[in-house]
Amino acid sequence: MTIQDGYAQGVRITYIGGGSRGWAWNLMSDLVQDDILHGTVTLYDIDQEAAQKNVTIGNRMRRPDGSEGNFDYRMEESLEAALQGADFVVISILPATFDEMEIDVHLPEKYGVYQSVGDTCGPGGVVRALRTLPMYVTIAKAIEKICPQAWVINYTNPMAMCLQALYAVFPEIKAFGCCHEVFGTQELVANLAQKALGVEAIDRHEIKTNVQGSNHFTWIDAIRYNDMDLMPLYQQAARDYAETGYETGEPGNWMNNHFRSANRVKFDLCNRYGIVAAAGDRHLSEFCPPWYLKNPETAKQWKFSLTPVSWRKENLKELLEKSRKMADGEMEIPIKASGEEGVRQMKALIGLGDFVTNVNLPNQGQIPNLPKGAIVETNAYFANNRVQPLFAGSMRKDLVQLSMPHVYAQHLCVDACLARSLEPARKAFLASPLLTLTIDDANSLFDEMVSETAAYLQWYQR
Amino acid sequence: MTIQDGYAQGVRITYIGGGSRGWAWNLMSDLVQDDILHGTVTLYDIDQEAAQKNVTIGNRMRRPDGSEGNFDYRMEESLEAALQGADFVVISILPATFDEMEIDVHLPEKYGVYQSVGDTCGPGGVVRALRTLPMYVTIAKAIEKICPQAWVINYTNPMAMCLQALYAVFPEIKAFGCCHEVFGTQELVANLAQKALGVEAIDRHEIKTNVQGSNHFTWIDAIRYNDMDLMPLYQQAARDYAETGYETGEPGNWMNNHFRSANRVKFDLCNRYGIVAAAGDRHLSEFCPPWYLKNPETAKQWKFSLTPVSWRKENLKELLEKSRKMADGEMEIPIKASGEEGVRQMKALIGLGDFVTNVNLPNQGQIPNLPKGAIVETNAYFANNRVQPLFAGSMRKDLVQLSMPHVYAQHLCVDACLARSLEPARKAFLASPLLTLTIDDANSLFDEMVSETAAYLQWYQR
Amino acid sequence: MTIQDGYAQGVRITYIGGGSRGWAWNLMSDLVQDDILHGTVTLYDIDQEAAQKNVTIGNRMRRPDGSEGNFDYRMEESLEAALQGADFVVISILPATFDEMEIDVHLPEKYGVYQSVGDTCGPGGVVRALRTLPMYVTIAKAIEKICPQAWVINYTNPMAMCLQALYAVFPEIKAFGCCHEVFGTQELVANLAQKALGVEAIDRHEIKTNVQGSNHFTWIDAIRYNDMDLMPLYQQAARDYAETGYETGEPGNWMNNHFRSANRVKFDLCNRYGIVAAAGDRHLSEFCPPWYLKNPETAKQWKFSLTPVSWRKENLKELLEKSRKMADGEMEIPIKASGEEGVRQMKALIGLGDFVTNVNLPNQGQIPNLPKGAIVETNAYFANNRVQPLFAGSMRKDLVQLSMPHVYAQHLCVDACLARSLEPARKAFLASPLLTLTIDDANSLFDEMVSETAAYLQWYQR
Amino acid sequence: MTIQDGYAQGVRITYIGGGSRGWAWNLMSDLVQDDILHGTVTLYDIDQEAAQKNVTIGNRMRRPDGSEGNFDYRMEESLEAALQGADFVVISILPATFDEMEIDVHLPEKYGVYQSVGDTCGPGGVVRALRTLPMYVTIAKAIEKICPQAWVINYTNPMAMCLQALYAVFPEIKAFGCCHEVFGTQELVANLAQKALGVEAIDRHEIKTNVQGSNHFTWIDAIRYNDMDLMPLYQQAARDYAETGYETGEPGNWMNNHFRSANRVKFDLCNRYGIVAAAGDRHLSEFCPPWYLKNPETAKQWKFSLTPVSWRKENLKELLEKSRKMADGEMEIPIKASGEEGVRQMKALIGLGDFVTNVNLPNQGQIPNLPKGAIVETNAYFANNRVQPLFAGSMRKDLVQLSMPHVYAQHLCVDACLARSLEPARKAFLASPLLTLTIDDANSLFDEMVSETAAYLQWYQR
Repeated sequence: MTIQDGYAQGVRITYIGGGSRGWAWNLMSDLVQDDILHGTVTLYDIDQEAAQKNVTIGNRMRRPDGSEGNFDYRMEESLEAALQGADFVVISILPATFDEMEIDVHLPEKYGVYQSVGDTCGPGGVVRALRTLPMYVTIAKAIEKICPQAWVINYTNPMAMCLQALYAVFPEIKAFGCCHEVFGTQELVANLAQKALGVEAIDRHEIKTNVQGSNHFTWIDAIRYNDMDLMPLYQQAARDYAETGYETGEPGNWMNNHFRSANRVKFDLCNRYGIVAAAGDRHLSEFCPPWYLKNPETAKQWKFSLTPVSWRKENLKELLEKSRKMADGEMEIPIKASGEEGVRQMKALIGLGDFVTNVNLPNQGQIPNLPKGAIVETNAYFANNRVQPLFAGSMRKDLVQLSMPHVYAQHLCVDACLARSLEPARKAFLASPLLTLTIDDANSLFDEMVSETAAYLQWYQR
Repeated sequence: MTIQDGYAQGVRITYIGGGSRGWAWNLMSDLVQDDILHGTVTLYDIDQEAAQKNVTIGNRMRRPDGSEGNFDYRMEESLEAALQGADFVVISILPATFDEMEIDVHLPEKYGVYQSVGDTCGPGGVVRALRTLPMYVTIAKAIEKICPQAWVINYTNPMAMCLQALYAVFPEIKAFGCCHEVFGTQELVANLAQKALGVEAIDRHEIKTNVQGSNHFTWIDAIRYNDMDLMPLYQQAARDYAETGYETGEPGNWMNNHFRSANRVKFDLCNRYGIVAAAGDRHLSEFCPPWYLKNPETAKQWKFSLTPVSWRKENLKELLEKSRKMADGEMEIPIKASGEEGVRQMKALIGLGDFVTNVNLPNQGQIPNLPKGAIVETNAYFANNRVQPLFAGSMRKDLVQLSMPHVYAQHLCVDACLARSLEPARKAFLASPLLTLTIDDANSLFDEMVSETAAYLQWYQR
Repeated sequence: MTIQDGYAQGVRITYIGGGSRGWAWNLMSDLVQDDILHGTVTLYDIDQEAAQKNVTIGNRMRRPDGSEGNFDYRMEESLEAALQGADFVVISILPATFDEMEIDVHLPEKYGVYQSVGDTCGPGGVVRALRTLPMYVTIAKAIEKICPQAWVINYTNPMAMCLQALYAVFPEIKAFGCCHEVFGTQELVANLAQKALGVEAIDRHEIKTNVQGSNHFTWIDAIRYNDMDLMPLYQQAARDYAETGYETGEPGNWMNNHFRSANRVKFDLCNRYGIVAAAGDRHLSEFCPPWYLKNPETAKQWKFSLTPVSWRKENLKELLEKSRKMADGEMEIPIKASGEEGVRQMKALIGLGDFVTNVNLPNQGQIPNLPKGAIVETNAYFANNRVQPLFAGSMRKDLVQLSMPHVYAQHLCVDACLARSLEPARKAFLASPLLTLTIDDANSLFDEMVSETAAYLQWYQR
Repeated sequence: MTIQDGYAQGVRITYIGGGSRGWAWNLMSDLVQDDILHGTVTLYDIDQEAAQKNVTIGNRMRRPDGSEGNFDYRMEESLEAALQGADFVVISILPATFDEMEIDVHLPEKYGVYQSVGDTCGPGGVVRALRTLPMYVTIAKAIEKICPQAWVINYTNPMAMCLQALYAVFPEIKAFGCCHEVFGTQELVANLAQKALGVEAIDRHEIKTNVQGSNHFTWIDAIRYNDMDLMPLYQQAARDYAETGYETGEPGNWMNNHFRSANRVKFDLCNRYGIVAAAGDRHLSEFCPPWYLKNPETAKQWKFSLTPVSWRKENLKELLEKSRKMADGEMEIPIKASGEEGVRQMKALIGLGDFVTNVNLPNQGQIPNLPKGAIVETNAYFANNRVQPLFAGSMRKDLVQLSMPHVYAQHLCVDACLARSLEPARKAFLASPLLTLTIDDANSLFDEMVSETAAYLQWYQR
């Protein structure tokens, strides 16, 4: 890679999980709209057909003005080959298939345990981690061997555990994790502020926040717009819409869209804890005791959806068809700003524009009252080959109380993977606040879930 | 107080809650059997009649050989007067009456929440703390003013919160907390070792342990007898008696005695976590999710009792009658070694015999992976006006995971008391692992319990 | 203060030490060149005549195009009045006069102890601190009472001790300390890079550094320009110019200008410790054992000046005359960018442009191996009413070894001030690495210096 | 090893440096007087002749009543063989010969740098460490391989660095370090107390102290005898004897005996810092700036000796002769209690009598304001296969200030050894508070000393 006059030539991006139809298309779309970076994107996926389709789609992408983008797309069949010479490594993988995810999310319902996403914490999060983390061990070792200086951007869940595994295997890895849940909260605040202040079109980047917590259970204890403290405004909204909820899109949307909510959980948490819970209601509710997830009726009452994996399976069919059409030229490839910050981060890391944004990193003290080494989400400064967390301050004790079981679950799942033993993960599972079972039932549930996904857990049979 | 030739004259002990018929009688009995200490015990109790009865009983106590003990008993009507000149202050109080304790323990059953003791953690522990801590604020201030150099020994529950309140109000206080649950575990180990090794009469003091954790959720990660590691022996017992349980007294006793168990929970925890859970099953089960307390049947299956407060009320009547008879000389006053260590600790603190035992103290790093300032139980060295915790090492991560919600609950209840606001305590309550309620039900339960004990919560209405 | 369309109206800046002819003129000059901020600067100085002159000068200042600036200047006779309504408080004071500074710097020469500046550490630094810190106690109390929400910018030395005193008295103070020594190092690097890379005019802001350490003994362990690591380039320069030194201005300048050097100390420290010492040689040498300051010949050999206070006195006369002329209109008031960042910081803090720069703040963990609470210099993020230190990482052990005596000296001098006792400061003094005296001589030196500045040390006679 | 009825059979002690004529004879003498332990002592020494002599002496030792002791003595020619089956490993070695020690202690005098012992810190300590630590790396590796469960007792200086090296190489090693300097201070206190209180024969074990600090720069902040606080008594003595000094033996002894002093430094430090410096004056003075060691006259004025290595050489001749005579039966082997605690510690570690004493251990938080992992000296509890440091509390800031350069010197010397580079040790050397040299002279001194002991520094030439 070389930089001249503010342009970077020969940038090499490796995308692990390059057959993805979500995050990969986002990145490709953002790259084609960028003027500054030029280079190659190498896709790697165990589903080589999917990767090949994305190569075709990437190379066919055009800017709105019809001109070509600055990146060539190619694929490699082996992880090692794909990592050769990488400046950046993006990881967004689906561990196993939606069949296994169905076990993660829905098998616990048999025991009366309900989950809205099931990919981060609780029963689903732990079992998903058991499948995912061994892959991360493999990836971390390969990066250490082949491109130890590359910057690694993770998008896969369970975010905190994936990152912790990378650092456990290769402590000098330059990895961070990105998630747009905080962005969504900034957008909600911007939306509320527009109305309240009578200002048009406040951009979420103008909403300056201090971010603290774990991914998907992230909190904002300070919000500013210019010299204005927006916290009172948000607190007022939380009170005003406590019962009805508040939707930035069409009202009632949360009932039709499995990824939306009416923000009632977010507001309820603000009314209780005084600050902003900065993730979607579906994620937040999974970190609490069964307050909002006691049963499907409770979730409905709080106006958020228990995203069924059956929907994901349906949706996948559509995406496969869309992918085929785009690759075959039957359908135009839509180009839009994804709202993700990967490209901006890459530019900052090579010295082309420093900025501050929220990311997931090992806790070195940026949150003094969470354990060192736990993966935490705070603001960080991106500049010239450095990502430095900002000191985010101690969290409220009551929120630490809620967070700790999950923070330790992350440690225990990584320990399970490193020790090739299911037992530490079982401990994490048993202590999940969502579970309300006797010790015997809780154990049975773990055993059953493990048994159903056993094909992917060879790693643990030394 | 003066010391000469190994005898201490003029020792002044103040007993807050001096009308007690449990701990007070134990201390009196231990003191009368001691040769070394001479002085005065001043009893203070809001129930002055009870204190007066104990004065009479104390002054009537005789050694087995019929000789008088070395202590005079007297009472004072005010706390301040009672503390004048104290070398030692013992605190063992009942906050309010068994009517309030009935609310603590049994009201949650309406919501399907069961507790075996209800005085340490969970719904009962939090609400009991709300009543108790303001009294500890008063006591701490009085000690700071009147006898700041006195050593303070606490026996009241919730142990950790009471001590934390004392230190929060008067940080230089020389206070520690004593509990015999670890002793009971040492006795169980001694009992098992006698059988396995064919040794007669191993004293629990010969069972050397490393103690870690919070009071009533205390753990032992090393057990030695001479140069022998007893952990394998205990682990074998835990496996052997996993199903049947093991009782040191008569089999089936746990069904008749509300304070006993068959140690099945203790063994189950050892089988899962590999080390020794060092408290009674009734206490241990309250710190876990509803593993052992999902409902009364589950507890029964695990062979421990949900101690009903009705039993305590009945028992109290008997104790009152016994107290009357002893005070009136109708009944002989029984003298026996209580098994408690208060007298030995007092002697060590004035330089007459240093030793090591387990006590509750603020965490200054003795357990590096629990928060600083939390009250923890570890071994400590008693000698010449010092109690120094021994470095006990980090706890297993899975046990920290289980402990943290309780550690933070302690902080939050003390904060509630200091801020004169119920809200921090409500947060502690809501996050109790025993609760399996929706947010609305959990809140209602808190409100109901608070309402039923409102007469004792004036403190919070500034 | 109000903000509209990117302009701030009614900004109130209070300047303590407002009669200053250095920092005050810099700020005034920067303010008059700024478009964004409008408001009032209130000057306060115990030398009211000097403050009045600066009011006149400030109000007479014109932009290069002849137009008026956006600020009105006024003075107040009392500190309290001056602080009313302040949004920003700037502190740059001279504690006592140059007569006292002469004692600080030159009296130790009698004992064979030489100092190049004498205002930060060592004998001069300690005694200067004794005079200064009581003033900071007064200022902190006044700010707490009158404008607790104001941002406080300190320029006075000893920087670290002044800030630590502010935080000790008023822990919630929003204070930070600014110093341009790191900027000078960035300029040196930019200068070296221009030559080596053949690039014209690299701005120091393009030199991205990671900053660690204490003020005036600050270190840079990473330097980047775009994607380029400049550390090898700097290390090469340090070797190349180890003997000759390197001056960015005219060669030999260091002999004529008491504030310049040939950077030989900076290069020697780089050659030894491998990274960049980021302060002037005159400051760096005072933090070491008598390596570079054993005697005047040694300093000369290392090509830096022992700034004599006599020169400061002469210079003051010139400045007084210049001040008079500018106030009287006899002389044009020169306007130029000062290179300081105060105005940019103010704008960032009210939400008009976030950025990252190096400042002095209490250590909350940004440098994990320096004590918490010590004042450290690192990068920090300025944005919307927040200054958040960036995690700067642990320092090299050998540099921590050199830094620790000074870090503790800072603590001890602040303790002396708070306890109104000279003794903690005496301990700091005795342990100064520059001193090479017997205990008796070291004590005599302290006593003599204290005696000569006794008029300013009434504070310590309770 | 087996234990029955309170006796231990088959105890295996390995003595590295078994040819020693100081520590080895002490241990042998203590063992022969003990009833409880039975077994074998295996001596290992690179000077096999010396070891063989000690085997003969050990086997010839008789109790005062003429009976044989319980231990057999034997030697092994290889370290590995000597360690086979060891329960305890004692290490007391002389790195190289007194010729090298002569360089350590006396070469710096050429540069005006004087040392009274030269084996712990400062120039002599650093260079001695460079020779010693590679031997400790070898020993640690051998213990890890052959007897990882053995308890390791170190007597060699530099104590802290030797222990830190052991733990760096084999983190699970069960090692601690013993030194009698604190005992000497307890004896001084006992002596003063006897006089002041009119009590006869107070044993030093009755003087209960809290110990904090680094070996040879150890401090006592609390002294108790029964319920009595002896600190005021000691402080009074420090004032009374500030000028004259105080000798427990014959007055003026310090002039004739190179290991004695008149305690003037100890008292001066107490007068300044308020607490007890618990090591001999010869050691204490080396940790300070040149307060007491500016030149030989200063030391004389403070009434302590600069122990010349020439004396050690003379003394060695006498010891060799004595050794020969004892081995040959020409001279009776004197038996007396050494005052060391090795045998008692061994008994405690196998479960035969727990107790508390001061030892050197890695800092796990027992002194919260010294770095974790540094070797610190505090009280510790010895019992049944555990040595647990007592929480000793934070040290005074002014003493931390004096201690830190040495604490970091220890780290740096160990780093030098592990990295096989002299450079980290050079940094430690340059920052020694005793040095008062220019950077060029300080470097020359280091180079000269290294060159003179080069034969033992092959380790550093990878």
